[in-house]
Amino acid sequence: MASVRDNEGGSTPKQRLVDAAIRLLAAGGPEAVQARRVAAEVGASSMAVYTHFGGMPDLVDAVVREGFERLDRRLAAVSRSDDALCDAVTLGLAYRAEALENSQLYRLMFGITAVSASRRGQRTDLLGTGSPTELEEGRRAFGHLVAAVERLAASGRGTVPEPSAAAAQLWSAVHGYVLLEIAGFFGDEGHGVEQVLLPLAVNLAAGLGDDRAAAEESARRALRRAG
Amino acid sequence: MASVRDNEGGSTPKQRLVDAAIRLLAAGGPEAVQARRVAAEVGASSMAVYTHFGGMPDLVDAVVREGFERLDRRLAAVSRSDDALCDAVTLGLAYRAEALENSQLYRLMFGITAVSASRRGQRTDLLGTGSPTELEEGRRAFGHLVAAVERLAASGRGTVPEPSAAAAQLWSAVHGYVLLEIAGFFGDEGHGVEQVLLPLAVNLAAGLGDDRAAAEESARRALRRAG
Repeated sequence: MASVRDNEGGSTPKQRLVDAAIRLLAAGGPEAVQARRVAAEVGASSMAVYTHFGGMPDLVDAVVREGFERLDRRLAAVSRSDDALCDAVTLGLAYRAEALENSQLYRLMFGITAVSASRRGQRTDLLGTGSPTELEEGRRAFGHLVAAVERLAASGRGTVPEPSAAAAQLWSAVHGYVLLEIAGFFGDEGHGVEQVLLPLAVNLAAGLGDDRAAAEESARRALRRAG
Repeated sequence: MASVRDNEGGSTPKQRLVDAAIRLLAAGGPEAVQARRVAAEVGASSMAVYTHFGGMPDLVDAVVREGFERLDRRLAAVSRSDDALCDAVTLGLAYRAEALENSQLYRLMFGITAVSASRRGQRTDLLGTGSPTELEEGRRAFGHLVAAVERLAASGRGTVPEPSAAAAQLWSAVHGYVLLEIAGFFGDEGHGVEQVLLPLAVNLAAGLGDDRAAAEESARRALRRAG
């Protein structure tokens, strides 16, 4: 799928509209993302949205793709060490950080807000297709979770019969944790990470076959690394 | 907190407005829940909403309380056997069924839709208070998860240092799974239950210290029981 970004650092009119929509989304939620307001952000009339995207639904799609691209970049930046579980937990912490820093965008990407709930056609049954979305950017982002699970199995720290189904387990756990934290159920100081997210990761890892003490040490190492 | 239900089976004007709001929510999403439309459903003018609730925010609160009450009843109906893990998994399956059957209400209850995201005052840090909400109905619903975790520990099937933090792990996993299934990432045939939710439950149970084969048998038993 063609990117709206023309080259690194450059910015096309389409990209400026996408960035404006993301700013409005972050500041005012999905209701704030209206053609008139998005266009005004870049000093244009509503017509700009129709000229460049044909309408709001395709602009929203471009926003979702941009969200997956950012998530993909964030997850790709997690370096690999010789501790596959530490790497997997670090990936989970990076996922959480990206979701919390861009909570409105995160909810839009995963079909939770009204505006995106109707765009269900992009979402696919990952248990059949191996990817949660038809969007290439989303496929790449989910691929980091699958790769982390495969590395756990390859390093002998777990038994994983089917990597994408196992990745779906990790994804369910992190997605649920992140949405509960965003909603305020774990307070505002981030103590849910140490009290819920890391113990959950350790229990899942031990459940997949890792040694509990080794899993706890890897989780502590990931927390220090994310520091 | 006083219930809007006057007695079993009876229905007050307040309860009729709440029921109407829930029907509109289910059919048209949060945007459909407007004073005029809710009142029209019960053959009244918008004024009825102001007379009985003082305005839409308090009506939305009453809808959220009703949602927790229904979830509480659904979870309370799960009978107890001598297999504490089977009971915990059955509880998770009942939670999933309630969420999927009332997906708009579920999202409203957990602060995911715009209309509820602003009512954050009701939500509390469950790691500090032991409950995710100030609402008595929500406290009772969450109590079923805590009780299930305590029974696991009491029956020697897991080590649980802090029941409400452990319940928060289970809740994260089920909440995330349910929202991904509602969004369409696990298809429409419910195969996510066997491919993701139950393996996740088994891994968590094994991680908490249960024997893996025993956990698998309990999960299979729960599936047959729910079937």
